[in-house]
Order: sequence, then C-alpha cells, then structure tokens
Amino acid sequence: MPTLSDAAREYARAHNDQFVNELCEMLRIPSLSGDPAHKGDIQRMAEWLEQHLRALGLQNVAIMPTAGHPVVYGEWLGAGADKPTVLVYGHYDVVPALMEDGWNTNPFEPTIKDGRIFARGATDDKGQLFIHVKALESYLKTNGSAPVNVKVFLEGEEEISSPNLVPFIKEHLDLLRAEVCIISDTSMRAIDEPAILHSLRGMTYLEIHVDGPKEDLHSGLWGGAVHNPALALVEILGKLYNADNTIAVPGFYDDVVPLTDEERAMIAKTDLAPEQFKQSTGISEIWGDLEYLIRERISARPTLDINGLWSGWAGPGPKTIIPAKAGAKVSSRLVGNQDPHKIFEQIKTLIESITPSTVQVNVELLTTGNPALFPIDSPAMQAASRAYEKGWGVKPIFTRGGGSIPVVAEIAKMMNIPVVLMGFGLDDDGLHSPNEKYSIEMFQRGIQTAIVYLEELANL
Amino acid sequence: MPTLSDAAREYARAHNDQFVNELCEMLRIPSLSGDPAHKGDIQRMAEWLEQHLRALGLQNVAIMPTAGHPVVYGEWLGAGADKPTVLVYGHYDVVPALMEDGWNTNPFEPTIKDGRIFARGATDDKGQLFIHVKALESYLKTNGSAPVNVKVFLEGEEEISSPNLVPFIKEHLDLLRAEVCIISDTSMRAIDEPAILHSLRGMTYLEIHVDGPKEDLHSGLWGGAVHNPALALVEILGKLYNADNTIAVPGFYDDVVPLTDEERAMIAKTDLAPEQFKQSTGISEIWGDLEYLIRERISARPTLDINGLWSGWAGPGPKTIIPAKAGAKVSSRLVGNQDPHKIFEQIKTLIESITPSTVQVNVELLTTGNPALFPIDSPAMQAASRAYEKGWGVKPIFTRGGGSIPVVAEIAKMMNIPVVLMGFGLDDDGLHSPNEKYSIEMFQRGIQTAIVYLEELANL
Repeated sequence: MPTLSDAAREYARAHNDQFVNELCEMLRIPSLSGDPAHKGDIQRMAEWLEQHLRALGLQNVAIMPTAGHPVVYGEWLGAGADKPTVLVYGHYDVVPALMEDGWNTNPFEPTIKDGRIFARGATDDKGQLFIHVKALESYLKTNGSAPVNVKVFLEGEEEISSPNLVPFIKEHLDLLRAEVCIISDTSMRAIDEPAILHSLRGMTYLEIHVDGPKEDLHSGLWGGAVHNPALALVEILGKLYNADNTIAVPGFYDDVVPLTDEERAMIAKTDLAPEQFKQSTGISEIWGDLEYLIRERISARPTLDINGLWSGWAGPGPKTIIPAKAGAKVSSRLVGNQDPHKIFEQIKTLIESITPSTVQVNVELLTTGNPALFPIDSPAMQAASRAYEKGWGVKPIFTRGGGSIPVVAEIAKMMNIPVVLMGFGLDDDGLHSPNEKYSIEMFQRGIQTAIVYLEELANL
Repeated sequence: MPTLSDAAREYARAHNDQFVNELCEMLRIPSLSGDPAHKGDIQRMAEWLEQHLRALGLQNVAIMPTAGHPVVYGEWLGAGADKPTVLVYGHYDVVPALMEDGWNTNPFEPTIKDGRIFARGATDDKGQLFIHVKALESYLKTNGSAPVNVKVFLEGEEEISSPNLVPFIKEHLDLLRAEVCIISDTSMRAIDEPAILHSLRGMTYLEIHVDGPKEDLHSGLWGGAVHNPALALVEILGKLYNADNTIAVPGFYDDVVPLTDEERAMIAKTDLAPEQFKQSTGISEIWGDLEYLIRERISARPTLDINGLWSGWAGPGPKTIIPAKAGAKVSSRLVGNQDPHKIFEQIKTLIESITPSTVQVNVELLTTGNPALFPIDSPAMQAASRAYEKGWGVKPIFTRGGGSIPVVAEIAKMMNIPVVLMGFGLDDDGLHSPNEKYSIEMFQRGIQTAIVYLEELANL
C-alpha cells in the first residue's frame, strides 16, 4: 500500500530541476554575516526565505528581529496536537568568499558542473537547510498535509557563532516548542557512507593584537633597538604549542572527557586513510598529536589553530619597515566538558604572562560555542537511522563531528530535546574554502531521506 | 669681499617660497617604484624632473632607460676642465603610503603645518635631492655659472634596492665621471647636530612562503591533523632569533668587522638617550642585543626584521579556516664585511633545514645591497665639514648610518671616488612611515650648505 511519503518522494523526484533553480536563487545572495557591508544582503536573503515559506503555505511566517541578524520562522502545524512537532534548524548566512582566494567561478553566481553546484553556501548551509523545506513542500503539494508538525527556524548568524540565538530561543520557547530538532549542517565521508553525528566540537575564537612603535618605523634608522611586533607575535604564538603538537596552554586539557576504549575501538573502524586524507587536503604529511588516530584528532580532540595573521607590508616588492603592530586570529575547537570562556581565560592569561614589556598585547574574545554530545540510542536517533536506510539507501554510522554548531548544545539544554544531526554534505564539499560545492545527487537523496524521516517520526 | 656663493645664498633665501612650491609639485606625483600600478607615475615624475633641469639651463638633459625605471640625467660643465666635477645622486621614487596606515592627510597632497611639509617622499628623497638642484640654480641665476662642474643623476629604483643601477653606471662611466659624489638621503638627530655619515648598512631582503593544504580548509573538519601553515611560519621565524635577541642564523656574524675601542668611545659620546628614543618611536622599552649601545645597535650592528606577515583571514569577524598558506617579508641590515648574497644563502639554508615535511617552504631573494664604509679624513669629507660650519652654522659630526643606500658602495667601487653623505633630514622625519614630513628650515639650511660646499670643492 503506498504511503503518504511515496507520493511526496515522487513529487520531489519530478521537481528536482525546480528545486535546484530555487537553491541557485538563494546562492546568488551574498549573505555574509561577519561583514557589516553585507547587512543589506542578509536582509534580502531573509526576505527571500520569508516569501518562499509563505508561498509554500506555512503559517506564522515572519522575519523576527534579534540584536543582530534576524531569524526567519514559519510553521505547519496541520498534523495536529497528537502528532510530534519537529523543529528544523538551519542557517542562511555564509562565510566570506573572494575570487583571489582561488575560486574558479564567481562564488555568488552558482555554476553547475559535473553534477555539482559551485557557490559559497552551497553545502553550508543553504543547500542542506533547503532539503527540509523541499521535503515539507513535497508533502504539502501532494497530500495537502505532512505526517508531523514542522517548525522551520532559520538563523543568520551561525558563521559568527550565533551571538544572539540563545536570547532569541529563551524569549520564544513556546513558539519553538518541539519534540525533536533536526539540523543538516554536517557531512559524511563518502556518498554511500551516511553519518549521523552525535557529538560536535565547541569553540573559543579570539584575536590577538600586539602593539609596538606608534607608527611603522624605517627599519634602517631604528632596526636593532626596537622589538618588532611581528617578531613578538611570532614568539607569543610559538609558545602556545608544545614540540609534540599538543597545546601548551596550562589547564587546556583539564576538562576533556577521555575517550573510552569502546569508543576508540568504534572510531578506529572508520578512521581516515592517510593517503585519502592527504589527497583531500593536499598536504604532504599528516600532522598532530601522535597519541591519537586521525579521526580522533579531527573530531574527538580539541585543537588550536591560527586562522589569520597580519603585520606590516604584504603587497608586492620590499618595504623596509618595522611594523607598528601585528595581529592574529586564533581559535580553539573544544570537546567534552571544556568550557569556552574558561579556555579563553586560560589562553589570555598565558599570552599576557609571556608578553615582554617591550610591546603591548591585547587579547580579545570574538565568539564562543559549547561542545555537544548526545546518546545514540534515543528513539529520534534510531528513527533517523531507519530514515537513511529507506531514503538514502544505506544504514548510517554514528560518529563525532569536528565542526561546531554552537547552538546545538544550547537547543538541547534549553528545550530539553534531542538534536539529530543529519548531515547531507560531503567531507570534501569545501565549505569555508574556495570552490565550495554541493552534489545535486546528495541534495536529492537528502530530500528523500528527510521525507521518510518525517514519516518515521510520526510513528514513534 | 663678497664671493660667488654670497649672491647665490641670497637668491636661495629670496626664492624660498618658489622652491617649496616646486617641491610640492614633485610630492604630488605618487612615484612608487615597488608597485607596477604606478609605472605611469614614475614616468610622469621623470618627465617633470627632465623639464625642470632643462629649464634651469642644464645640458645633456635626458630620461635614460634602464631595464626598470629610468634615470634622469642633466649636467652643467661650465666651470671648465680645470675645476672638479661633482656628481649629485638622488632618487625620485618613494615607498607606498596608504591613508589607512595612519596618515592624517593625503600622502600625495603635500600639507604644510608648523613649518613642515607632510607628504610621502618629503624627506626621502625628493626634498633632499631638490636641495642640490636649487643650490645649482641659485648659482646659475645669479652668476650665470657655478664654482664647479655639476652632474645631476636621479634614479627611480632606490626604494626597491636599485636593481638596475649598477649596469647603468657600468655602461655610462664616462658620462658620470666625477671627482666626488654627493648624496643627501640621510638624517641628523636634531637640527643643530648635523651629521655626515661615513658608513651605511647593506641589506638582504627576502620573502618566505609556506604552503600547506591545497586550499583554505574548514578548521572544524580538518583541524587537529593538518599542520597549520601560519603555525609552521611562526615556528620557522621564531628559530631565526636567539633568546638574547641576537640572530640565530649560523655564520651570520662571521664577517662582521668588530668595532674598535676608539670607535665605540666616539659612538658612546653621541649615544641616544633611552627616553628620547622611546618618545620618538613610541615604544615602551628598548630592545635588542644588550652587549651594544643603542646607537651601535641601530647603525653599526646587523639586524633581522620581519617587515610583513600574512596568512588566512584578516578581515572583520571570525573565519574558521586553516589557511592554505602563510608568508613573511624578512630583511637583514648588514654591516662591515657582510655579503648580502652569502647572508641570503645562510638564512635560506637554515629555514629549509628547520621546515618540517608537513609543509613546503620557498625562500625568495627580493633585493640586496652592500654595506659601505669611508675614511673621514679625505679632502672631500673635510670640505663637507667646513661647508656645514659656514652654511648650516654648526660643525657636523661624522657618524654611521643605520639605513641602506645600496648604490653608495657600488659608486665608490666602480667610479673610485669618495661618496659624501650629507644628510639634510631629521631622524624623526618619519620616512617610510605615515605622516612623513620635511622641515622647511632644514630644506633652507640644506640649500645654504650645498651652495657653500660647491665653493669649498672648487678650492680643494
């Protein structure tokens, strides 16, 4: 007997081109959340989504203000009070993309090649959030209803660590109330190895400013008696690491929950092949803490990375100056029970204690996010597993994710519901990199899986 | 009895405003030699100078091509073969200047305030080279002749270390032949402490490129198993220095001619006061090799400075990437018998030997310049000392300069003549810095001194 989902799945297959065209419309809007110059684009993106949700027949559709970029909200509650409600979270903002970073095509003019859509935000997260919108559309257009109630909750500040989302959720707990939250903003290793993440890393992101002379100095006239701020910064950053590639910040590892032998054994089964890792990244040799497997290093262990570095003259040719200042962006991916604010204080304290009196240092917190960890045996998790089996065609693995979706831990805590991380991206989609892409096949199979999942949730 | 120079000095005093206005015309042309985008401005500057020299009545005036930016040449040989010939060298090119570096006014729209002209190139070297042009004009306009023959030789590549000047001199040794070369491109500590430099530092300027992943990577997905190129660069740069602020490059100091006790005693008499040094630079504490006096560190000792540093994201807000690459500009000021190419090889060898196999490094030589050292008892040096006494009003000291004018050592060697470095700038003119300036009083006293010097040279 055909189920409601059969018709919806057929509709989705038949309307693939329309769905892709609509996604491309979204991708043309450069909704950069970190750059004030793109505030207008954020607004345009929010308005596009508002109109789109309204046209699908959702109710209560609104652009809802926050202290920063707005939330777009819409709901379909026609399944009735006896059916579960699903909260779909996604983010419509993106990170910067410049042609000179190495893009082959305009990052904000989606280009389809070899079955992939190349554009900033294609996989992170416009393509993935759209999967759930299109799954809902497929039900509504065929059956006039869906198996469960759905609330669509799209934010515009994920890439700047969602500074205003917690207050927003606090203020709208009733509106957002649901039995489960689905987020598709993560990835799998290969198209036939779908993964549900049960853990995400948190983050502490900071900026370090070193100030020396009051202005750039001529290196001939003053060189030899002035502590070069770029050198001072180099000396400071060098002291954040140990020789074995572990992090030298006192107390940094104190709160990390150790991996159990059982979990290590499970991770070992899906560890990354070094050759594949090297090919995906283009590096010549794997780096890191040799006490841990590659997959552990990139998902279950905390990190400290320099995300940006600047000082003095970076243009063509020589310029013989002692720069007035130097700066760095540094961020730490956190796991287990690490607290982002405590980690910030630990890093700041170390930096201040090792900065010599020849320069001034200023350590500024940019953003934070808590790590998250969920049990894999909950009904919602198991229903997701079944949805992949039917919709994707492959049983998924449960794994830990190395990335950070700061709001995941907050949603789970504040709303007291499980968050199911159904990542429909590929590890090598190049999110945050030049030539970010999204496979149209992944997009299609994601919609199929999302359609099945709504039905699975109705039967819990 | 009034001498020829009295009339010339009177003319210079009377025409000060005209001279300043002409200088401002020069300063309006952004003749950046290091940036290909300014090639047209270099040409405009050369044409301006050509027309100016021709209008003063010089002969053989021409824009002479090199493999890079052209030389502007003009001569007045009316003093006759029995009189000495003076070669005046200057450079009409400048280093970059951007408002966002901290300029209070447009660097290419000269602004006069408190008797100072604020503009890029005001002191380095347009203002100073113009002193000799105006000294010659003052003779020609009053006496119809000058006490000696004068050849004016202006290059456009000094700020990129004069890559084409040596071949040019080699090819035009006859044209340039002279008994002495005067260069005004250096500075004194205070207006009543004029200094003639008898030594200049040389330079090795290089760029370091560290390459890691093939593109910027998401720090969450890959962080922990990829050697961050910014970190690798930090580790490399940190190993170029010892803990006592000396340079850790093996062999770096091998060829440095030690300072004699006599010279150290002379330098000690004019050492810089730490408080004055801190005030001029804005630093909180003096840095460097504590075995040496401040003045020794900034003039008689070699240095290694980071002039620029770049990697990843330096814009507003966070961007969670592992950068694909990182780079630095590094330059060394050389003294005594240090050879810039040997020093480059030493630095390159060290960097290559300490770079781990997790990243690729590329060390590229940008420019070099030899250090220079002249005896202070030559007739031309002593004549210069007398010219300051009469023209400037104060007997000058002989001192070592920390800067580099790469061509000085080459002119001395190839033409076998003394080079007299009559610096008419002030140490705090801010050359290569934002708000570079030149005091109009320095400009005037420089012209007076240059006028007297031509007469002193005639009487040798």
